Amino acid sequence: MSEPNDDVAILPVATLQVLADGTTRERREEVAVEAPFQIQLAGETLAITMRTPGHDAELTAGFLLAEGHDPRGTAGARIVKRGTLSSASCGVCGRDDIEDLIARLGPVNVETKFERSVLSSVMQRLPDHQPSFARTGGLHAAALVTVEGQFAVAREDVGRHNAVDKVLGWAALAGLLPLSEHFLVVSGRTSFEIVQKAVAAGVPAIIAISAPSSLAIELCERFRVLLIGFARGGGFTVYAGRFRLQGAG
Amino acid sequence: MSEPNDDVAILPVATLQVLADGTTRERREEVAVEAPFQIQLAGETLAITMRTPGHDAELTAGFLLAEGHDPRGTAGARIVKRGTLSSASCGVCGRDDIEDLIARLGPVNVETKFERSVLSSVMQRLPDHQPSFARTGGLHAAALVTVEGQFAVAREDVGRHNAVDKVLGWAALAGLLPLSEHFLVVSGRTSFEIVQKAVAAGVPAIIAISAPSSLAIELCERFRVLLIGFARGGGFTVYAGRFRLQGAG
Repeated sequence: MSEPNDDVAILPVATLQVLADGTTRERREEVAVEAPFQIQLAGETLAITMRTPGHDAELTAGFLLAEGHDPRGTAGARIVKRGTLSSASCGVCGRDDIEDLIARLGPVNVETKFERSVLSSVMQRLPDHQPSFARTGGLHAAALVTVEGQFAVAREDVGRHNAVDKVLGWAALAGLLPLSEHFLVVSGRTSFEIVQKAVAAGVPAIIAISAPSSLAIELCERFRVLLIGFARGGGFTVYAGRFRLQGAG
Repeated sequence: MSEPNDDVAILPVATLQVLADGTTRERREEVAVEAPFQIQLAGETLAITMRTPGHDAELTAGFLLAEGHDPRGTAGARIVKRGTLSSASCGVCGRDDIEDLIARLGPVNVETKFERSVLSSVMQRLPDHQPSFARTGGLHAAALVTVEGQFAVAREDVGRHNAVDKVLGWAALAGLLPLSEHFLVVSGRTSFEIVQKAVAAGVPAIIAISAPSSLAIELCERFRVLLIGFARGGGFTVYAGRFRLQGAG
């Protein structure tokens, strides 16, 4: 290997781990950092994306290459890093100020609590709602589940964000917003943008099969959203909003 | 479940399956459809995204919701579907005509062949190059591997496309383009945009752990790129460019 890959940004976080037998333990875990990044060429913004810091020059070169520019001849290419929640993720391209967007979000109902037993069981039932994944292996899924554990709607898409848009859009068209009595289930990881969409719909909890990003945790803390990752085999890990958990264990 | 989820677009494709023992068989498989989709509000294009057709009204409503619009009051919202390769995927937002982009791509060297034994072994070695995934579980990985099977570079990122940009950007900055003697390894699924980036760098083969989309296959066929999915446990499935395969089995 000619190039090391040992400097990816990782952040320690305090979590609550709920085991399959219902017992819990405090943990220190690590999450991948997600942070906004802006690429400019000759003063013009080409892209604002969420990325994991590290190898930013390579990221810029690779992006320019796919855009049809010569990555080694782009004296005008500038990397603009943004350290705070001040720019946009891919799916909200073109927005100038994500703080404006966040200011428009919420509040999320803080009364709703979730039973641990319901949260433990929901992921085991998700495959029943992924008929196309079973056939292709190539689709993400999102679902809305009631606080009692009933699946209200599930959708699949090649894009994780699209699947989330579809279930939240279903609820919007059905006049169910804000979704204070449902939680959002996602088949993959939880990014900033997934949380943003959930908060816009008033969803007080997100449960995912895989890990959240640092920025997803930050946004959930801000809106007091219950954020669960690694929901597998009956156990799960709580990254934010643990005051919403209730039930024995 | 109040809403059915049985009409997601799926496409049958002819594949070549290479088993772990080296034997092969012709298969008919199914892949998730990926197709461009444009959302307009009052004549202005809000987003162009790649999505799986189906529930497009819900997708639009959910997108508008996250953008701060009232999904039920948007009489001006129009859904513009595009049936051909005429618009842009998320990571190339703002481009008017993806056909222009494709016209600028390639050609990809058609001489390079790949040994089946090399392709079989590479995924088993990928975890050695994912140190941050091992710690967080929240990162995608991409790598460039030589035709002889040597890892040249590997990168991790919360975004699959970013990881690909980083490895291809590394190659661009190192003066290695076009990458006619390497293949691209990706930890997840292969979308249109991944193929587009690979072709821009001259990469003649892509090997992924998970499934490709319909549009990824289409673009690989167009540029004669070897496209492999479900590379696990020594076996894999060939979706395009099988003329590049060589070796016993």
